[in-house]
Amino acid sequence: MIPSTELPRHAVIREVGLRDGLQSIARVVPTAAKLEWIRDAYAAGQREIEVGSFVPPRLLPQLADTAEVLAFARTLPGLRASVLVPNLKGAERAMECEAEFMLLPLSASHAHSLANLRKTPDEVVEDIARIVDARDAKGSRTQIEVGISTAFGCTIQGRVEPEEVVRLVKAAIDVGADAVGLADTVGYADPGMVRSLFEAVLPVAGDKLNCGHFHDTRGLGLANVYAALELGITRFDACIAGIGGCPHAPGASGNVATEDVAYMLASMGIETGQDFDALLALRRKIEHWLEGETFHGTLWRAGLPKTMKQEQNA
Amino acid sequence: MIPSTELPRHAVIREVGLRDGLQSIARVVPTAAKLEWIRDAYAAGQREIEVGSFVPPRLLPQLADTAEVLAFARTLPGLRASVLVPNLKGAERAMECEAEFMLLPLSASHAHSLANLRKTPDEVVEDIARIVDARDAKGSRTQIEVGISTAFGCTIQGRVEPEEVVRLVKAAIDVGADAVGLADTVGYADPGMVRSLFEAVLPVAGDKLNCGHFHDTRGLGLANVYAALELGITRFDACIAGIGGCPHAPGASGNVATEDVAYMLASMGIETGQDFDALLALRRKIEHWLEGETFHGTLWRAGLPKTMKQEQNA
Repeated sequence: MIPSTELPRHAVIREVGLRDGLQSIARVVPTAAKLEWIRDAYAAGQREIEVGSFVPPRLLPQLADTAEVLAFARTLPGLRASVLVPNLKGAERAMECEAEFMLLPLSASHAHSLANLRKTPDEVVEDIARIVDARDAKGSRTQIEVGISTAFGCTIQGRVEPEEVVRLVKAAIDVGADAVGLADTVGYADPGMVRSLFEAVLPVAGDKLNCGHFHDTRGLGLANVYAALELGITRFDACIAGIGGCPHAPGASGNVATEDVAYMLASMGIETGQDFDALLALRRKIEHWLEGETFHGTLWRAGLPKTMKQEQNA
Repeated sequence: MIPSTELPRHAVIREVGLRDGLQSIARVVPTAAKLEWIRDAYAAGQREIEVGSFVPPRLLPQLADTAEVLAFARTLPGLRASVLVPNLKGAERAMECEAEFMLLPLSASHAHSLANLRKTPDEVVEDIARIVDARDAKGSRTQIEVGISTAFGCTIQGRVEPEEVVRLVKAAIDVGADAVGLADTVGYADPGMVRSLFEAVLPVAGDKLNCGHFHDTRGLGLANVYAALELGITRFDACIAGIGGCPHAPGASGNVATEDVAYMLASMGIETGQDFDALLALRRKIEHWLEGETFHGTLWRAGLPKTMKQEQNA
């Protein structure tokens, strides 16, 4: 048995639907709808949004308008916008557009790294070093966040050794990453694995380890969020309506649903600043924009418990 | 932050689909199909099954064959069969039929208790005392397990005070209950609530508190199982395909899915003795027997991770 613990009082849910969600859906959502999405997400209380990727438009045409979407996000006071960048070229665009964060994926699976970026993990670390140097030379204020993908296993390679994850986190921090997160790209993590991997990485990364990114492929996404919360992690990626996946990880399904994470945290008294009615209204818009796609999540079906409604009215 | 902990090495998943699942589905599953269900569940490694309820057949015609189903379950070596009994009359039938456990529901919500059993919680405690006396007078070996329903809140009454749960657990044990479990009948629990309520009850109940019963109405079922596991609880109710609900708790949906609980536990190295392929084959049969009903659960969509398949083949 373990002793009682205080869970954190506040947490951040970063909305990644516009990037991780849309990148695995072939349909192109019009830019105007994306701006409406961001406006509504902001009105619902979301203050961190990953708005797209700076990748070649021929690879991901659905994210070709990332610069325009980012420019709009930057007009909303207090909104911290991230973009994913796969390389130095993408990083340069992120800095030109003054993104708050650029997210650099670093696969702990050698096989996934080759499939996703055509580079070994160590070659990606070298890229990160070059991006840090370019950022510092430019005097840019864009923060560099490294997301360790396939940290809990890989659909191509299978097992990923925790030692390799720890080694890559250390390497990323050594070359100047401002922050790191651990990503269960393909939904292989369980809460026991989350506990032990975060415990292994925390001594190396300290406060720089500040994000959990969990796909809900096998229903363990919320349990994994809870396991990370118990270790003091307070920032989680999520997609409204649970949309998403990974184009290079066959069988991967969406991220844990934003509204479900927001519900679990609110139920436990952890503030996220998000408004359920507004999130569920945005979910309905997204179901309309992406009609025919697969949606996930649970809260939308049952609604809030009577006990939480009583508290809201108290 | 909390220190590392060892999770339990073994756990029991009690299949409650034949009772909690079927009681909220109007259709009557033929007795022959129920026997096939139990035979397949047993072959899949399940060793605890709640086979039905001894309630008046006019109230739950779909469970009218409980005596016959129980008689069959008792022919399978090592299978521990439970039945739900709402009162002394039901308990007498359970003892005549030599059930291993009889499960007595005791609502911590006054309003739910009146709706479900037309008795206050304290009147139900008096019933439990009478059932214990009758059992002891008869020399029956049927164990008396009290399930504290609506322990985490109630769709009718709203909030349920943890102090009331602790008081009722103590009362049930004082009158001779052999075991108690805490049930989130309506899907209001979160892992923080699970931790704090089990922590509050453990000093009163000790080893007699040995079951968690979580509905997955808002997607937190597996997170709740994990929170209970961390406190050393090693027995969980679950329904294959996530079927179920509560006829007196509007909006309640099914129990956490057996196959998903089995997957989470196996992934964490906790043995349950259950075979995934056999569970998923049984799930398909149940989807056929209950065609048109709503099913839940996640593992059936994605299958086992490659990493677990590698271990199975190793």
